[in-house]
Amino acid sequence: MAFELTREFLDDVEEAIEARNDSFVRQSLEDLYPADISNILYELEDKPAKYIIDLLDKEESAEIISNLDPYRRVDFLKLFDTAELAELINYIDSDDAADILNEQPGKVREEVIALLQNREKARYIIDLLHYEEDTAGGLMAKELVKCNINWSVVQCVDEIRRQAQKVEKVNSVYVVDDQGILKGRVSLKKLVLYKANTRVADIYDDDVISVESHQSAEEVAEIMERYDLESIPVVNVRGKLLGRITIDDIVDVIREQADLDRQAMTGLTGDAEDDDTVFASLKARLPWLMIGMAGGLLAARFMGFFENEIAVVPALAFFTTLIQGTGGNVGIQSSSVILQSLANKSVIETNTLQRLARVLLIGILNGLVLSLIVFAFNMLLLRTEFKLAIVVSIALISVVLVASFTGTVTPLILDKFGVNPAVATGPFITTANDILGIAVYFMTARMLL
Amino acid sequence: MAFELTREFLDDVEEAIEARNDSFVRQSLEDLYPADISNILYELEDKPAKYIIDLLDKEESAEIISNLDPYRRVDFLKLFDTAELAELINYIDSDDAADILNEQPGKVREEVIALLQNREKARYIIDLLHYEEDTAGGLMAKELVKCNINWSVVQCVDEIRRQAQKVEKVNSVYVVDDQGILKGRVSLKKLVLYKANTRVADIYDDDVISVESHQSAEEVAEIMERYDLESIPVVNVRGKLLGRITIDDIVDVIREQADLDRQAMTGLTGDAEDDDTVFASLKARLPWLMIGMAGGLLAARFMGFFENEIAVVPALAFFTTLIQGTGGNVGIQSSSVILQSLANKSVIETNTLQRLARVLLIGILNGLVLSLIVFAFNMLLLRTEFKLAIVVSIALISVVLVASFTGTVTPLILDKFGVNPAVATGPFITTANDILGIAVYFMTARMLL
Repeated sequence: MAFELTREFLDDVEEAIEARNDSFVRQSLEDLYPADISNILYELEDKPAKYIIDLLDKEESAEIISNLDPYRRVDFLKLFDTAELAELINYIDSDDAADILNEQPGKVREEVIALLQNREKARYIIDLLHYEEDTAGGLMAKELVKCNINWSVVQCVDEIRRQAQKVEKVNSVYVVDDQGILKGRVSLKKLVLYKANTRVADIYDDDVISVESHQSAEEVAEIMERYDLESIPVVNVRGKLLGRITIDDIVDVIREQADLDRQAMTGLTGDAEDDDTVFASLKARLPWLMIGMAGGLLAARFMGFFENEIAVVPALAFFTTLIQGTGGNVGIQSSSVILQSLANKSVIETNTLQRLARVLLIGILNGLVLSLIVFAFNMLLLRTEFKLAIVVSIALISVVLVASFTGTVTPLILDKFGVNPAVATGPFITTANDILGIAVYFMTARMLL
Repeated sequence: MAFELTREFLDDVEEAIEARNDSFVRQSLEDLYPADISNILYELEDKPAKYIIDLLDKEESAEIISNLDPYRRVDFLKLFDTAELAELINYIDSDDAADILNEQPGKVREEVIALLQNREKARYIIDLLHYEEDTAGGLMAKELVKCNINWSVVQCVDEIRRQAQKVEKVNSVYVVDDQGILKGRVSLKKLVLYKANTRVADIYDDDVISVESHQSAEEVAEIMERYDLESIPVVNVRGKLLGRITIDDIVDVIREQADLDRQAMTGLTGDAEDDDTVFASLKARLPWLMIGMAGGLLAARFMGFFENEIAVVPALAFFTTLIQGTGGNVGIQSSSVILQSLANKSVIETNTLQRLARVLLIGILNGLVLSLIVFAFNMLLLRTEFKLAIVVSIALISVVLVASFTGTVTPLILDKFGVNPAVATGPFITTANDILGIAVYFMTARMLL
């Protein structure tokens, strides 16, 4: 039932636009949902995309545009004059409208707001523009249905009727007092089931979870997930109802967070995408590659101190890959496990010393298993000299221990300083482990050979 | 307003349980939501946890238990006999009930189902046990409110009243025909706003997105995200309404997928957690460490072929870290970008040749920048011999190209064969790149030195 975009479909639509065959284009798009048409726009040049928007009715166009991702949208909307933008914004919920206008230059933003016919929406947007993007205030929409605690069910239903045009999805009606302070909520189910003259005060649920406008998007996501909420009211510090956040926006927050983590883990800067320009691609990739390179040069410089040892026993150099690779893998595994427990904020912090003791125990066991296997391989298959085989195995245990420790401690420290701890599973920790690995290995060699 | 679990709170509760001070325990937990009490259970031993469950009323206990994660739950429920389990299951929605029973041994499962007082729930559960866990059928709950297309609004409201006890959250009422085929939905908002004698056929929305029971959990997540749905009906191949999936279950699917990807990327097998037993920890970590180790030994064996070169020019060995590290980083970056575009399934596949051409262009540019900088460092700071500096820079460009290519192609191939492509950013691709890097470097050296 979900639409599957194909190359043939797209070619047909593009051809029809070229030929200005409006009826064919309209007919092709008729059965599609706005989200599907948004996906079609990604595949089109700006001009044919604008052609489609102009062809459709304003309400549908508005939804298509609010579905676009910001990067595409900011370019695309350059084709619209401020009057066109204002017409579309009229149909867009205040939260998305504020996001869209936030992407625009200040002058465009002010003009569009001035041109809005719906003055209530204009006020909503002006209000929302004050909040930071990644906070509850930045995520909330002002559109919601609220009723006074002193009303009856029928007054409440009248209010829903009045607001029905404005609020697309009504999950529950928020109950406020005369000062606008949030008191609770009453579900539509109850409004359907109770008699018209029942007082809201008698049936509302006073046990409602809310967030304050300054709370971070991640906190909101964590709370909505924990309590399985479909929407959450946003209040100010005095408890006054300001807006509401729906779960679809939170799903986007979760996705974005996962993408950011993945990028941090894989050494990409900013929001790298497959179809970025070549320049954007280099900008996202080069910084961490440079850091890795600096680490590599440092390692080279360090190995330079052991030139004589390597000249006498070239086999010493053979095992650098093994030592560094194992160290890197152990470090990344350890930090990944810590990341997981950091993400699960509801868990009480276990004693740090206990945690480290556990980590080191696991490190010793991992290191022992690996170094015994490597020793066996060295003696039986590679026919490595006995002394060198001992050096390699001892260095391996040491490196596994060091990497377990740094892999555990680094994300904890980064998190403490407010840096995304996921970078600790990326090139940063790998590079550090490479240098540490070399150091441990050659020190061991100098002592034992 | 969300509850923050503290060590002091927990100590007080544990003490009160020890002292069998029921009134204190009850009072401490009174204001908490079931999800918060679930989090408290994670921090307690099994016996005090069971004590809490026995103390609370059955409906709340049931919700606390369905909130627990499966690993903890399966152990904890061993303390319950089948009669106790059946009593709890009576209060749990069919989707969670089927999950809980699926975790139990077959004998327990059958006994509990036989003991269920609510025979409708028993039928629901038996039905749900047939579906694969990671499909729409495995995610859906049977509890939903449906009405016949020929009914009036008042008949519909009566049906909601009848089902109100059973279905906790009612977002919309599904509309079916006499054969139970899904025809559409009618929102509670409409039922509130239209007159009692209005026919459902006149006001229902026939344009409803559904999924078939065999579709994968990821497909369902993608569809619900794309169309911003709070719940989605599940039908069989003939369009008969079977159940519904709510967004909170999909949020869990998204989280789990992100966790699985992270684990694959960081070389952990299975669901590794910070507080695993030491044995579970080793089991999760050792497999990929062994693969990395095998790669390291292979690299050592390969470098053995170049023992004479290294003996003559030990400096040759200094740059293995640089070459391998850069290759590893480039490979991981490239596969991460491809992962991102694979996750975004709604995008039409771009021409593979075009994509590879772009990737190689970016690789050449990255490689050129890095190798020029390295060359400058080698000549000016490290005072590397000219010929060796040339070898290092040429090998660096080659390795960046090779890693860009394998980093791009590997996740595409893995995805084609149904393997989670995220493993391509993990130890697998790093190990492959280490060996390739060594090979490219020493071949270049043999040719040019």
